[in-house]
Amino acid sequence: MSEGVSDETGARPGSAPRRGRPGHDQASVLRVAIGLFNKQGYDATSVGDLARELGLTKSAIYHHVPSKEHLLERALDEALGELSSALDAVRADASYGPEERLRAAVHASVVVLAGHLPAVTLLLRVRGNTPAEQAALARRRDIDQRLAEMVREAADAGAIRDDIDPLVISRLIFGMVNSLTEWLRPDGETAGLADAVTTLAFDGLTRHD
Amino acid sequence: MSEGVSDETGARPGSAPRRGRPGHDQASVLRVAIGLFNKQGYDATSVGDLARELGLTKSAIYHHVPSKEHLLERALDEALGELSSALDAVRADASYGPEERLRAAVHASVVVLAGHLPAVTLLLRVRGNTPAEQAALARRRDIDQRLAEMVREAADAGAIRDDIDPLVISRLIFGMVNSLTEWLRPDGETAGLADAVTTLAFDGLTRHD
Repeated sequence: MSEGVSDETGARPGSAPRRGRPGHDQASVLRVAIGLFNKQGYDATSVGDLARELGLTKSAIYHHVPSKEHLLERALDEALGELSSALDAVRADASYGPEERLRAAVHASVVVLAGHLPAVTLLLRVRGNTPAEQAALARRRDIDQRLAEMVREAADAGAIRDDIDPLVISRLIFGMVNSLTEWLRPDGETAGLADAVTTLAFDGLTRHD
Repeated sequence: MSEGVSDETGARPGSAPRRGRPGHDQASVLRVAIGLFNKQGYDATSVGDLARELGLTKSAIYHHVPSKEHLLERALDEALGELSSALDAVRADASYGPEERLRAAVHASVVVLAGHLPAVTLLLRVRGNTPAEQAALARRRDIDQRLAEMVREAADAGAIRDDIDPLVISRLIFGMVNSLTEWLRPDGETAGLADAVTTLAFDGLTRHD
């Protein structure tokens, strides 16, 4: 993926960090790229658009990153890596029963989505037009399967309702989670949101008092 | 919107229906157009693409419809008209209390979505790049506001939980409904789906037995 430029710092072994211009590094180029991809679509965004948005020349952009596809890969990797790590952590907690595990997975999914909103939004819009997108879709399917497995385990254990197909439940609940990308703002108020989503998923709209 | 060609039948007053070729009428051209718009994006779809898909010449397409934008307007109008009519019917039923009304609105939204899946999918992907899309977004916001109002009425009446902002509830529940467009197939099994979504929205995952 990377050719001679370290992903994390823009530094090469034994050299000072490379900077195209003060105020921009790989991370800030990535932020702006994700914003443009989400706004006008990945296919419709050129490196020239990105350069204009950053006030850089195209060659200065290539000083930071090898290609547009590299930026897409980095963005999708951020979203997929965070989601996957969150599920690993939930799965690793031996104190959870099947219902608590599913609750924790729903809650963690919202926390990751809100904390990495631009990258997750980009991930959810990927349609598989390039090899990088297809690879991301495969990793996303793997995450979806892990979530569906947690729903099935909870249903099998009698810990949640069993009158709706666990696969349909999984799609509906995580469809609700993912729909947050339609209206949540990166600078918006998200405190309590993960609790609200989890409560609604488990307890529904009906009052229980 | 229409210039000399009636939207409904392809007929002009006092003339026989216009047909470019046996086997294609305005409705079938619209079906194929919606399929292409959903598959490759509206902006990326040309009238030439549509002609190829239908096995027609471009001039034969223009025999059926005045423009690509006209097809988009027809498609969005189908989705918006059906959703709006369904809410009108729910609102008109004086036998409903606030909770039953909201239940009926959730149920009806799923029925419309499943019954008009390609058109609703297209509507939900609209981002406002053209005047037709902006008009559709305005009508969609109006529908969202009517749904949010039903949630607020039910909350104000004490008929549903009041510990989550009604606007957040509305976005989450109808976000769950709309997420069906991510995985439902036009020829898929949809019986029971509206019941499942409504049950999950109101009763949640927790067993109540």
